[in-house]
Amino acid sequence: MITLFTNPTLSSINRNPLQDFCVPDLESSPTNSGYPCKLQVTSEDFFYSGLNTPLNTSNPKGTAANSANLMTFPGLNTMGISMYNVEIAPGGYNPPHSHPGSTEAGVVIEGSVLVGFLTTNYTLYQKVIGPGDMFVIPPGLIHYEGNVGKTQSRLLTVVADDLPGEVVLPHTLFATKPAIPNAVLMKAFKADSKTINMLRTKFTT
Amino acid sequence: MITLFTNPTLSSINRNPLQDFCVPDLESSPTNSGYPCKLQVTSEDFFYSGLNTPLNTSNPKGTAANSANLMTFPGLNTMGISMYNVEIAPGGYNPPHSHPGSTEAGVVIEGSVLVGFLTTNYTLYQKVIGPGDMFVIPPGLIHYEGNVGKTQSRLLTVVADDLPGEVVLPHTLFATKPAIPNAVLMKAFKADSKTINMLRTKFTT
Amino acid sequence: MITLFTNPTLSSINRNPLQDFCVPDLESSPTNSGYPCKLQVTSEDFFYSGLNTPLNTSNPKGTAANSANLMTFPGLNTMGISMYNVEIAPGGYNPPHSHPGSTEAGVVIEGSVLVGFLTTNYTLYQKVIGPGDMFVIPPGLIHYEGNVGKTQSRLLTVVADDLPGEVVLPHTLFATKPAIPNAVLMKAFKADSKTINMLRTKFTT
Amino acid sequence: MITLFTNPTLSSINRNPLQDFCVPDLESSPTNSGYPCKLQVTSEDFFYSGLNTPLNTSNPKGTAANSANLMTFPGLNTMGISMYNVEIAPGGYNPPHSHPGSTEAGVVIEGSVLVGFLTTNYTLYQKVIGPGDMFVIPPGLIHYEGNVGKTQSRLLTVVADDLPGEVVLPHTLFATKPAIPNAVLMKAFKADSKTINMLRTKFTT
Amino acid sequence: MITLFTNPTLSSINRNPLQDFCVPDLESSPTNSGYPCKLQVTSEDFFYSGLNTPLNTSNPKGTAANSANLMTFPGLNTMGISMYNVEIAPGGYNPPHSHPGSTEAGVVIEGSVLVGFLTTNYTLYQKVIGPGDMFVIPPGLIHYEGNVGKTQSRLLTVVADDLPGEVVLPHTLFATKPAIPNAVLMKAFKADSKTINMLRTKFTT
Amino acid sequence: MITLFTNPTLSSINRNPLQDFCVPDLESSPTNSGYPCKLQVTSEDFFYSGLNTPLNTSNPKGTAANSANLMTFPGLNTMGISMYNVEIAPGGYNPPHSHPGSTEAGVVIEGSVLVGFLTTNYTLYQKVIGPGDMFVIPPGLIHYEGNVGKTQSRLLTVVADDLPGEVVLPHTLFATKPAIPNAVLMKAFKADSKTINMLRTKFTT
Repeated sequence: MITLFTNPTLSSINRNPLQDFCVPDLESSPTNSGYPCKLQVTSEDFFYSGLNTPLNTSNPKGTAANSANLMTFPGLNTMGISMYNVEIAPGGYNPPHSHPGSTEAGVVIEGSVLVGFLTTNYTLYQKVIGPGDMFVIPPGLIHYEGNVGKTQSRLLTVVADDLPGEVVLPHTLFATKPAIPNAVLMKAFKADSKTINMLRTKFTT
Repeated sequence: MITLFTNPTLSSINRNPLQDFCVPDLESSPTNSGYPCKLQVTSEDFFYSGLNTPLNTSNPKGTAANSANLMTFPGLNTMGISMYNVEIAPGGYNPPHSHPGSTEAGVVIEGSVLVGFLTTNYTLYQKVIGPGDMFVIPPGLIHYEGNVGKTQSRLLTVVADDLPGEVVLPHTLFATKPAIPNAVLMKAFKADSKTINMLRTKFTT
Repeated sequence: MITLFTNPTLSSINRNPLQDFCVPDLESSPTNSGYPCKLQVTSEDFFYSGLNTPLNTSNPKGTAANSANLMTFPGLNTMGISMYNVEIAPGGYNPPHSHPGSTEAGVVIEGSVLVGFLTTNYTLYQKVIGPGDMFVIPPGLIHYEGNVGKTQSRLLTVVADDLPGEVVLPHTLFATKPAIPNAVLMKAFKADSKTINMLRTKFTT
Repeated sequence: MITLFTNPTLSSINRNPLQDFCVPDLESSPTNSGYPCKLQVTSEDFFYSGLNTPLNTSNPKGTAANSANLMTFPGLNTMGISMYNVEIAPGGYNPPHSHPGSTEAGVVIEGSVLVGFLTTNYTLYQKVIGPGDMFVIPPGLIHYEGNVGKTQSRLLTVVADDLPGEVVLPHTLFATKPAIPNAVLMKAFKADSKTINMLRTKFTT
Repeated sequence: MITLFTNPTLSSINRNPLQDFCVPDLESSPTNSGYPCKLQVTSEDFFYSGLNTPLNTSNPKGTAANSANLMTFPGLNTMGISMYNVEIAPGGYNPPHSHPGSTEAGVVIEGSVLVGFLTTNYTLYQKVIGPGDMFVIPPGLIHYEGNVGKTQSRLLTVVADDLPGEVVLPHTLFATKPAIPNAVLMKAFKADSKTINMLRTKFTT
Repeated sequence: MITLFTNPTLSSINRNPLQDFCVPDLESSPTNSGYPCKLQVTSEDFFYSGLNTPLNTSNPKGTAANSANLMTFPGLNTMGISMYNVEIAPGGYNPPHSHPGSTEAGVVIEGSVLVGFLTTNYTLYQKVIGPGDMFVIPPGLIHYEGNVGKTQSRLLTVVADDLPGEVVLPHTLFATKPAIPNAVLMKAFKADSKTINMLRTKFTT
């Protein structure tokens, strides 16, 4: 691919013919270009308090997050940005995942966090960062965050899309409906059927 | 203008033909499409600690900020995102300004902050928000932030551009070189020459 | 921001699946991506005579204009262009304003016109031009036009958007509903409450 | 194709990292993304007087034009707009041509002009218009203008590209180097070799 | 025009808010941004067998094609790609035509094919290629394909648009409704009315 | 994400200021916007015979491919398209992989092929198709192809990018340099260190 460089103005493409924004009416059914715009808008539509809802990281991954995106904070519609308040318990890891085509960046608020990403030529870039430190994940690359400290960690992150997709690994290989044929995964993992079934069981509850 | 909606993938347009990113060499002179990419990249290129440099808000506006953008954190090149750690002293205000074509969003970390923006049809949307609360400023609209509490306030903000422009009001009307002719400003402010000169003196030191 | 250079083809993106254009039905209610396309189109839809309606510049600003945009000349829908026939009386000035994200260009038809614009680093570029002379205003920058001659002046201008927005200064600071708090404007203008109120009165009738 | 609608902000994508514009140095050799930006810019760079150079329509087509584009008015670089002062003698015609991907619009200044364009489903839209009347040609469609009055006519036109391409018919079929094989044109025109050669001679002098 | 280079990610812009694709419901009436998305999708929606329907090249041009585009293979909606199975009889030619703004590429499956295209500065590039050979036609340029062998030829082609437009020459000059005035074509072809009428008769049956 | 729909014209954005294309000089060093354009171009630059080089599928995956992309067929530069001639031996599988942000489509030339892809909400769409049948993979989604027949199979595929990236699973998790920490993969696979090491060994030879 070829470098085109930052489009400083893309999000401003998203202006409504009669307004400077389009706060969607999520009650209406979406059209092929999104939800219709609300006709009545108030200041409340541009502010969101859901990011500071208490989080519970008592789960296998040891991670939890509050999301401010098109569905939770409709005022973000067409703004090209979503934000996340992420907590990770000591030893917890956000598994390798990618946001197809969207840059991610973030700042550590509390704790000691290992942030890493993988390039398409199999290079790993990673570093342990602390409070106030910022990281950036190039668009579409697989990345992970983990708490390598002894206390709870918290990050404030942003993804350059108001409703980003997410591909989680290896979940997406083992938890699809219908299941990916064993033959495909055996070749991919260079493993026998028994190994694939063993791996698969963890993701099919 | 017509709503085109979020481009989830623009930042990923910015991929180098041989890499997944383009960390610029700011020592080289920029071409008309930006700086050349560094050939040697390390993990350090994707992490930045400059956002937590101590800030001093003892100035007339009562505001100060650390910026993570293309020039301070080159790894952001082509990522379409810049981030800011902003501090505002009690009674301080970040004057009305706009980022042409770029969405801004942010989260209050400490204190009580008044955030407001103006639409192109002269409507003001504003609210006082506190720690953990998020706001969004539609692209290109004039906005301001002020500390309406009794203690120092801090915000973490993001602009959807890795080197956003800024138009500050009314600074841009009174502080240009050369000066805007009085006749232009008299008509604009519906004021006499004496008033314009009085206003101008504040910005021409 | 980084130079991406002209997109010669964006306006042709705007083709309808079954037509080469989309003449909107302004009677229908707009969706979040604009108005539905008319099914029956005639030659009349692509021609407009409203630009030569007589103009009256007997007003405080001494300026008047006919606009050919999406709302007045629906055939411009998705064409990425709007045009304007502007008249300015001697001594009249079109106050400083910007079109967020859109280039403006124009040609003087009659009279002697001062055209100026301000960059984001506070540089003013301006010149007095006459009949047949052309000017260009880079996208999003604040600009103004004034008649510095002794006779009526006329310009034919184009903006690279079929329904451009407009931010007028300082109108947008003093004429919003609700009003911007005095505290914000006092900091911005480095002025006392009395001065702000004095300036405000001109715009709140 | 599917309607994407106007991009109000594309031209503002074209901002230089350190400037609000990129006035190219045409003396330097172009790179694959255009010419390098001049470092020193003056007001003169944004104004152009070449549109009102006298025109001579004493030629077979009876048309002549002054062009303000990237090459003649470098300040238009990255602005996404070019303008033209076109004169047509009585009975003169600008032959059918298209600007791949770019909208064209214009206003008649003097005379009586027939403006027509062809859709991709073989429909012709045309009308005779006079002084002050405006027309729009959807992007990429074949169009023509002719003077159907008794006096010289003049138009001021704009194309949504600062250096538009042009495909002229049937010139492009008969005047290529090397020549298109007769077999191709015989099938296309459903004509014999003698007819093709007859048509070709007009364009190969 | 200025080189912007490949946008590797444009097609992925076309993602639905709740899905990774938008298979259109062609039964519904299209909106100005295309057809609404089907809510129920199956594997069948992403596969198409219509390209291998038998073709009959017994026609004046000696060419025939099966098209996989938005209308025949709705799963291509928003994918930015259409494909074609083209057969050309010996001596047959696909007349000069262009796809406004879209790249075309293809591979010869059987036979010996002459592929040529014309640049906007009247240069012809052409070559005779055989089975397995690939060609590319730059976006928007006029091109043709012909069977210069003794046996039936077949090509598999792709156009970078899921519903490309097509301008066919000289058909588009002689077969429009209403007809282009003779005066326009006489100037264009530098021919008399008799010649134009002769050419026109071939296309108006 | 929100549906923006096909951009029929993006590849034509990529036009050189003085040419209709930009055939890159791969001998020169790339700039941040790609390779410089060759000044001398011949017909040969737009045709490629490398797709029909004999392929050898005697390898663990049982697949092999010839690629026509920016690096092998420079004429594709800025065309937004790359093509591939893919052969798969009976029982062979092209492992799960994605092309960040680019649509893939293809046609089976010989044999019986299973083509499947996974959505971001874990749905698998797949089908066995034969000669002449076409498939489409939505941009950025993980997909695979396998030969489920008894004879060699061959596909002709296209990706909407002239130099697409590729993320191969699970290769990208186990074959990076440096290695992804076991702790990350143990959480991701919900497996112990022994299992991770076992899986890793297959990819680190």
